[in-house]
Amino acid sequence: MGDVTRAIRMGMVGGGVDAFIGSVHRVASRLDESMTLVAGALSSTPERSVASGLSLGLDEDRCYATWQDMLTCEAARPADERMEVVVIVTPNHVHFPVAKAALEAGFHVVCDKPMVCTLDESNALVAAQQASGCVFAVTYNYTGYPMVKQMRGMVRSGEIGPVRKVMVEYLQGWIATPLEQTGQKQAAWRSDPTKAGAGAIGDIGSHAENIMTYVTGLELSSVNADVATLVPGRVLDDDVSALLRFENGATGVLAISQVCPGCRNGLRLRVWGETGGLEWAQESPNALLQTSLDGPDSVHRLGDAGLCAAAGSRLPGGHPEGFIEAFAALYKSIAAAIHAGRDDGDEFDYPDVHAGARGVRFIAGVISDRA
Amino acid sequence: MGDVTRAIRMGMVGGGVDAFIGSVHRVASRLDESMTLVAGALSSTPERSVASGLSLGLDEDRCYATWQDMLTCEAARPADERMEVVVIVTPNHVHFPVAKAALEAGFHVVCDKPMVCTLDESNALVAAQQASGCVFAVTYNYTGYPMVKQMRGMVRSGEIGPVRKVMVEYLQGWIATPLEQTGQKQAAWRSDPTKAGAGAIGDIGSHAENIMTYVTGLELSSVNADVATLVPGRVLDDDVSALLRFENGATGVLAISQVCPGCRNGLRLRVWGETGGLEWAQESPNALLQTSLDGPDSVHRLGDAGLCAAAGSRLPGGHPEGFIEAFAALYKSIAAAIHAGRDDGDEFDYPDVHAGARGVRFIAGVISDRA
Amino acid sequence: MGDVTRAIRMGMVGGGVDAFIGSVHRVASRLDESMTLVAGALSSTPERSVASGLSLGLDEDRCYATWQDMLTCEAARPADERMEVVVIVTPNHVHFPVAKAALEAGFHVVCDKPMVCTLDESNALVAAQQASGCVFAVTYNYTGYPMVKQMRGMVRSGEIGPVRKVMVEYLQGWIATPLEQTGQKQAAWRSDPTKAGAGAIGDIGSHAENIMTYVTGLELSSVNADVATLVPGRVLDDDVSALLRFENGATGVLAISQVCPGCRNGLRLRVWGETGGLEWAQESPNALLQTSLDGPDSVHRLGDAGLCAAAGSRLPGGHPEGFIEAFAALYKSIAAAIHAGRDDGDEFDYPDVHAGARGVRFIAGVISDRA
Amino acid sequence: MGDVTRAIRMGMVGGGVDAFIGSVHRVASRLDESMTLVAGALSSTPERSVASGLSLGLDEDRCYATWQDMLTCEAARPADERMEVVVIVTPNHVHFPVAKAALEAGFHVVCDKPMVCTLDESNALVAAQQASGCVFAVTYNYTGYPMVKQMRGMVRSGEIGPVRKVMVEYLQGWIATPLEQTGQKQAAWRSDPTKAGAGAIGDIGSHAENIMTYVTGLELSSVNADVATLVPGRVLDDDVSALLRFENGATGVLAISQVCPGCRNGLRLRVWGETGGLEWAQESPNALLQTSLDGPDSVHRLGDAGLCAAAGSRLPGGHPEGFIEAFAALYKSIAAAIHAGRDDGDEFDYPDVHAGARGVRFIAGVISDRA
Repeated sequence: MGDVTRAIRMGMVGGGVDAFIGSVHRVASRLDESMTLVAGALSSTPERSVASGLSLGLDEDRCYATWQDMLTCEAARPADERMEVVVIVTPNHVHFPVAKAALEAGFHVVCDKPMVCTLDESNALVAAQQASGCVFAVTYNYTGYPMVKQMRGMVRSGEIGPVRKVMVEYLQGWIATPLEQTGQKQAAWRSDPTKAGAGAIGDIGSHAENIMTYVTGLELSSVNADVATLVPGRVLDDDVSALLRFENGATGVLAISQVCPGCRNGLRLRVWGETGGLEWAQESPNALLQTSLDGPDSVHRLGDAGLCAAAGSRLPGGHPEGFIEAFAALYKSIAAAIHAGRDDGDEFDYPDVHAGARGVRFIAGVISDRA
Repeated sequence: MGDVTRAIRMGMVGGGVDAFIGSVHRVASRLDESMTLVAGALSSTPERSVASGLSLGLDEDRCYATWQDMLTCEAARPADERMEVVVIVTPNHVHFPVAKAALEAGFHVVCDKPMVCTLDESNALVAAQQASGCVFAVTYNYTGYPMVKQMRGMVRSGEIGPVRKVMVEYLQGWIATPLEQTGQKQAAWRSDPTKAGAGAIGDIGSHAENIMTYVTGLELSSVNADVATLVPGRVLDDDVSALLRFENGATGVLAISQVCPGCRNGLRLRVWGETGGLEWAQESPNALLQTSLDGPDSVHRLGDAGLCAAAGSRLPGGHPEGFIEAFAALYKSIAAAIHAGRDDGDEFDYPDVHAGARGVRFIAGVISDRA
Repeated sequence: MGDVTRAIRMGMVGGGVDAFIGSVHRVASRLDESMTLVAGALSSTPERSVASGLSLGLDEDRCYATWQDMLTCEAARPADERMEVVVIVTPNHVHFPVAKAALEAGFHVVCDKPMVCTLDESNALVAAQQASGCVFAVTYNYTGYPMVKQMRGMVRSGEIGPVRKVMVEYLQGWIATPLEQTGQKQAAWRSDPTKAGAGAIGDIGSHAENIMTYVTGLELSSVNADVATLVPGRVLDDDVSALLRFENGATGVLAISQVCPGCRNGLRLRVWGETGGLEWAQESPNALLQTSLDGPDSVHRLGDAGLCAAAGSRLPGGHPEGFIEAFAALYKSIAAAIHAGRDDGDEFDYPDVHAGARGVRFIAGVISDRA
Repeated sequence: MGDVTRAIRMGMVGGGVDAFIGSVHRVASRLDESMTLVAGALSSTPERSVASGLSLGLDEDRCYATWQDMLTCEAARPADERMEVVVIVTPNHVHFPVAKAALEAGFHVVCDKPMVCTLDESNALVAAQQASGCVFAVTYNYTGYPMVKQMRGMVRSGEIGPVRKVMVEYLQGWIATPLEQTGQKQAAWRSDPTKAGAGAIGDIGSHAENIMTYVTGLELSSVNADVATLVPGRVLDDDVSALLRFENGATGVLAISQVCPGCRNGLRLRVWGETGGLEWAQESPNALLQTSLDGPDSVHRLGDAGLCAAAGSRLPGGHPEGFIEAFAALYKSIAAAIHAGRDDGDEFDYPDVHAGARGVRFIAGVISDRA
């Protein structure tokens, strides 16, 4: 359970005290002692940046007013105490400049999804990463669940035959009302085209694309989308469905929404091949349903004997793992890559810059269908 | 439990001894003693028709060689013993001639789905029904489940607010392999364009369309479909997805397939309005999930106090009802209409000729998207 | 689906128009056309008996004022129209005299559970049945579910190894309040010691005993019970738990209650052997969970390939069967025995007089633990 | 998410590198930064103690050879760096001497369950804690789940009426075979009477007792147990069931086993009152089922609006929390008590020495029923 290797030193951009996802990153990073927070530029205003850093117990001289300061000052520190990785948990439009500058300064990067807002930014970032040789990871955290890894392992090893049909859905209801008009911070920036780039398709659609690709390994050949805004007064999309075709001829359906009242965080992936099917749902993440041509169904559970190595869990069967643990699994993989000094998402099992770029392309493709 | 009213006298076309759905119709009709079988032209060959009728205990002189004989001879019998309704359970292409002739001969009609194979046939049948004044019902049997009626009742009374999004899926796996090439009878005619008219979209897509419309009451404004054939060598579609838009602006997703290994009879409907959502699944038909903006979820169960009148069950809570009972509910409604002498699907709650015609239009619309 | 063999002619004692279980028996008997109602003494008062019979469509001369009349008059009819079996669906205290007289008059008997109220009656009835050679069945209907038969088949064939532990629970809530004081008829007689004999342990405990024994085949060696009455003012038990030991050393727990608010008809059986376990629940009756030493779990579903012959279903997979169908399965087995002229519960798979007697012993044993 | 308060300095006894639960304690303690490990006597052999401490990153001079050394040396350190709390995660028989000595040396104590092996030890420890005034907590970790706290809140506030019936089960299968004979370390000491004191009833029965009492607040008035050993060759109990009565007249059933193949960590609690019921299961810990006299059922989910304050979660709805998080919740409560300087399990919501003593009494009471 992560008690052995030295923790990587991380600096965080965004994620101040009242942010949701920054806190998740910090907890996940320390769950397995993969990383430890040593520096931060935690808010868009210098005063709040420093205050947030102090409240998190950072040394005063590592509570930076701006992310530019952090990159400069940390680069100047001795190698054995210098920040090694920059974790970017800002609204989407800030990802690109920070990530690019961090790579150019020789820092590894962990960047929230979607990686950037435009195809141009995406291309530039891929180039910057390749020039730098640094580790770059996008926190598509749902692939950190052991049973998603098991699902991938089973699909890839042919247990359900060649993939024939994919259904992915990600249904939420948290902006079923015009929450952004109340000043709620999460809703506000996500509904602002200048900060989020895209609406639901960027926020959760990118997760759906990633998990589908992670599990199946299939390339999309066509996307036919219906991009809708169902809550009056909202500018960005909040409900998107798409008919998919994959290069091998498989069909697919993607359905995402953030306006389904009562849906909490309903990410669900179903994949059928010629001889069987697999189903996983994020809200009961420790089980994986397998179906076959003739029955019975099988339910694989976390910790069972016979799961693939990648699906290893921290605990014995029957001890539920959750969202934080999945997030932590990602951090553990990223730390391993940093320790090894190789940016290789396949080898170390994390979403790399190419996964990030693929998501940006997917979002752009869907949005282009908008009426 | 159906112990009171006189049973309607029915004659059956198709449904011989080795047929699946004919037997279901007979059992369903007698569950509540709604109807009783008095005559039959049960097979496409005269010898087997008669043999099937005898084995079902019909009087020898009412085991007819052809459906034409049955219509003629039964019309000549005294009113108090004459067949009152013709139940058509043949392959799809036979529905039209039998139904039209039966109506013209003054018989009520119960017709399996899809009603007919073409828009022209559909229009002609609507006209024939209206000229006759006879009761005409299409056996979209899934609307017979009490909790589907409860779902309809809740949607229609505004319990989830104006409908915003609909997801309907109907996933099977029984022809995940080229079963029709083995001579299996059900698969053979359903895969034959001359007998089935359409593939999965006709066989199960029509159910999906019907239940969605039954529950929401919304009219479709656009359908954007991907009509696929995933099993090599098959002619008709076996996997269809569609993006839907409704006249009120609601979005929808329809996904049907008969080639998902391990799926049995996975009809599932989810509807969200502005303030809540409802979910029902045929394989656990006695529960209805209701979600709301803030939680908790509610699970309504068959027999609970407080359900709407239409959702009444034969048994107290905790006594599961199933497929046969739902089918029987349809027969009970139809018998009530016949007793009343009024063809009114809304009043008596059965799918009438207009529901049948709507399904035919839907299938035709989807198929027109085929590449 | 039961279209072939001649239906057995049955006469019913009890089960008038406002009774619950009589109607269930009639529907179940006709679902597979196993039996047909030809005579009845349907109520404890002659006027209501006759009125009930007429409303059910019985011939006027076979609507009897008393069960004694029915036995006498039917015995005098010609063999080819005479009632063949007496179905007893009265309150418990009437079972014994009717059943005994029916056997002595040479009629087969279908008797509701518990078979009788006392050990003496039970012994006398066993003797009467053996003297008569008639078929005698007790309607422990839950063993009619296909997946219960599958469970039995798997336990008996050693798929989970020698049985080690059994947990059976049957939890209801319908008399969580003193319903019997409101005049509700079902609650009234079941709460009356002179009519019911025992409370919850007789009403549902006998089902729990039967299904446990049916599936495992194990004999009880000891029963240590806590017999409670939780609703003030009630005389009979409404909540009973017991620690069980079986002759092979296996342990067991039985928990039944009729006063758990929100429980509907929660019969659930779990059996573990040395190498695996099985779980079945009446409220989702078409699935059977199998667990093993190492995982994964398996879920067997109605209609799957590979189920044992006894678990055959009327419909393909994914078409839910329910309470009525299970009841009908029992009637089908009983009709087969009557056709064959052999009272053999093992061969024809129905609960016979010995199963009935075992239930009476079980109830008596539990009640004797009452403080 | 625990980013604010200073972490408490903890020393650990037991929990070396190959131990299961020690690692869980460390991860849980740092999830919310409630505590931080500063010292350890991590194994029963001095060499392995030191090696384990070093591998966990402890300062060399705080890797102690024995727990006695740790208590002595840490007590001598300056107050602002001294260990504040001793976490005891050894086999059961070591709990007592360490806990007593730690209290007497003025350290707070976190002790694994069951607190001690005998009633005498329990009494002595209660006295020692009261003399010391130190915080003492027993890691009954399952009460850390938010939905268990919600369940408690609802029961205590009368939402289901006065409690009438309790069913608690804790079913595992990990020693369904004689695993202890293979040398597996966890199984070995738990099967050794000199180290474990009791078998399944001590290991998991104490959890069952605790969660039941935590939620209901009821005192047991009688326990009638069947204490069994089902795996041949085993000395301690591995399967225990009991009939319970509570002081208010409520009935209860407890069933625990560690020999049910396929059961993983099946802790489940059901409580019914006069007007409703509640059900929670550890393997799907983020939901709480509520039933009522008339239906529908309600499902409360983590993060829902309207939950009680104690059921607050780290994340929004739909983000599953698991075992680690529940464990961490306990650590957070304990740290709060230490910061406040008050040992008060009710105020800070952790299982205190009295909860520990109650568990020891419960185990002793059950074991006394052993044949």
